[in-house]
Amino acid sequence: MHFDAPLPLQSGASLSGYQLSYETYGTLNADKSNAVLVCHALNASHHVAGTYDGQANSEGWWDNMIGPGKALDTTQFFVIGVNNLGSCFGSTGPMHTNPATGRAYGTDFPVVTVEDWVDAQARLLDVLGIHKLAAVMGGSLGGMQALSWTLRYPQRVGHALVIASAPNLNAENIAFNEVARRAIVTDPDFHGGHFYDHGVIPKRGLRIARMIGHITYLSDDVMNEKFGRQLRAAALAAKNGKPEELTGYLYSTQDAEFQIESYLRYQGDKFAEYFDANTYLLITRALDYFDPARNFGGDLSQALAAATCKFLIVSFTTDWRFAPKRSREIVKALLDNRRQVSYAEIDAPHGHDAFLLNDPRYKNVVRSYFDGVAKEVSQ
Amino acid sequence: MHFDAPLPLQSGASLSGYQLSYETYGTLNADKSNAVLVCHALNASHHVAGTYDGQANSEGWWDNMIGPGKALDTTQFFVIGVNNLGSCFGSTGPMHTNPATGRAYGTDFPVVTVEDWVDAQARLLDVLGIHKLAAVMGGSLGGMQALSWTLRYPQRVGHALVIASAPNLNAENIAFNEVARRAIVTDPDFHGGHFYDHGVIPKRGLRIARMIGHITYLSDDVMNEKFGRQLRAAALAAKNGKPEELTGYLYSTQDAEFQIESYLRYQGDKFAEYFDANTYLLITRALDYFDPARNFGGDLSQALAAATCKFLIVSFTTDWRFAPKRSREIVKALLDNRRQVSYAEIDAPHGHDAFLLNDPRYKNVVRSYFDGVAKEVSQ
Repeated sequence: MHFDAPLPLQSGASLSGYQLSYETYGTLNADKSNAVLVCHALNASHHVAGTYDGQANSEGWWDNMIGPGKALDTTQFFVIGVNNLGSCFGSTGPMHTNPATGRAYGTDFPVVTVEDWVDAQARLLDVLGIHKLAAVMGGSLGGMQALSWTLRYPQRVGHALVIASAPNLNAENIAFNEVARRAIVTDPDFHGGHFYDHGVIPKRGLRIARMIGHITYLSDDVMNEKFGRQLRAAALAAKNGKPEELTGYLYSTQDAEFQIESYLRYQGDKFAEYFDANTYLLITRALDYFDPARNFGGDLSQALAAATCKFLIVSFTTDWRFAPKRSREIVKALLDNRRQVSYAEIDAPHGHDAFLLNDPRYKNVVRSYFDGVAKEVSQ
Repeated sequence: MHFDAPLPLQSGASLSGYQLSYETYGTLNADKSNAVLVCHALNASHHVAGTYDGQANSEGWWDNMIGPGKALDTTQFFVIGVNNLGSCFGSTGPMHTNPATGRAYGTDFPVVTVEDWVDAQARLLDVLGIHKLAAVMGGSLGGMQALSWTLRYPQRVGHALVIASAPNLNAENIAFNEVARRAIVTDPDFHGGHFYDHGVIPKRGLRIARMIGHITYLSDDVMNEKFGRQLRAAALAAKNGKPEELTGYLYSTQDAEFQIESYLRYQGDKFAEYFDANTYLLITRALDYFDPARNFGGDLSQALAAATCKFLIVSFTTDWRFAPKRSREIVKALLDNRRQVSYAEIDAPHGHDAFLLNDPRYKNVVRSYFDGVAKEVSQ
């Protein structure tokens, strides 16, 4: 969808002549009351569910959650996935041509915030003729967008599902984001953000960024269970059906000695192949900046007074990036405003990643919540 | 101290013609029974206490612990600090000339382990004529050396103080080390580890490594208390006595917007000025490799059966890098062997860094332990 009218941004800048990539699933009902907007996090896109014909491994990133008969049932709801501005999966972003200069935006792409994304999503809904969402839903950074929807467009949201999220990032989270950004920005192939002109990609920085991300998405427990101190050589032997024996150390500082090292390198390499470096900077910064309580002297209860919809808040016990206590802050602030809020704290071992995984208790909570939403929606 | 005899290493390699930098404090008594060896961690050295004449800010890294009248009292004990092989503060390391090639070792410096360091320290004691240590003491990686002493030279240790340490690194710790190493190794200025020949330093990688280190040394709580979401502009205003007002965001992905970012960049820059990149690789690898239970099928109790000395184990509640539960594993394994062990779990907010800080409860535990050791030592 192309938009000609400039979008005013939180920074004071504005973005003119942009486009948004989006996908929809299911059928919009006659009174357009069954729409559910699904917001994505760092490295995901508008492709939230289903597969593309003839493309292997093309499942949407939340395909275990969204589809016919699934927790978010596309036979009942009209689901919309939108790629955010500044991302690298179709919507206007740093790799696209800056009309002002005729070359790729690069680091000249304006800094976008959660609020800006929400405004852009609202304009898309305007064009689709959807005045009010049955629900808005997201995990992690997507949860921040869902929360922001309830504050910027309270009359346009029936329900908000805020999963594995937080009312803002704490210092440690900002710190991890900053290290990842510095790794990218100081990669000589970054070229001040205009690497497209040089035909290179700051892959070294992207790899480091992704490795840090993976460590923080997983819990200590699941990492120990999945990798522990297993040596790569022992893992390879096991994979090839060879007898397990005590493999000697390689005594190397550069070879991947432990299985966890091999895993992280693989994930880093894969990510550097498809993700845009400038997008990584923009999206981590949107995470850093989100802080609805900021204009209320840090008082989250005051900040959330604007929200009028009903809420489901979900957190996961081993998530140390978006810890349950951060979700409980949201719950408390909503209750302070006497809002209707359900809260589920799922005892899951997988850390922050749990919100993307197929945990039956988690899925049942979401399914049951949407069963309630469906009753409010005319079929 | 120069050593001509080759030192056989765990890897099978050996190091010939090396030197160890060391410092001593206090006076060795007549029967040489009051010696305490202090082992250092990642970025420290043999300079454990005191200051150098005429040099500002030259306090030893554990000066709050060691000195006349301090918890480790140098009027009673003869304290020895040794810079480990492969380090960059005087002992033979990657920046020194490889006799085999005539150029700096660089990445050709052999991979050294905790056990190798302990063997080298034992040789130094041989030359000093010290057969048995009153105590060996260390924090973090230094604690691993102290533990290793009790296994390799059980007859030569009276007491071991193992502080903020672990019987091995878990997957998450190895993972953080690996990211830091990849940042260094993939810095174009690393030149395969022979950057000395090129007159450059892989500072980008060292900065990233140090930033990651700082995040993991601090607790989430202390980071929030010290930095929180404070903006750099607000911090600067406060420093200059200007009225505190709501500072606007810069809306930048590259400027240091938050105070935590500014702090981490400063720490990274400082570290890159003085620390050797190859040393960083070697020392983090020594951390990864340490695992005394490895040759006992992972059974730490069997592994620690060789130890005969008395122990003080100390951990800190908010240390998530070397968590209390890891210290408790050591305590349990020692108790399984009916060894005499004291254990203190200090309720401190500072994370792993706590072992270097001046917490009175912590210092009192160590002081009181050394009071007991002193009674066993002839004055």
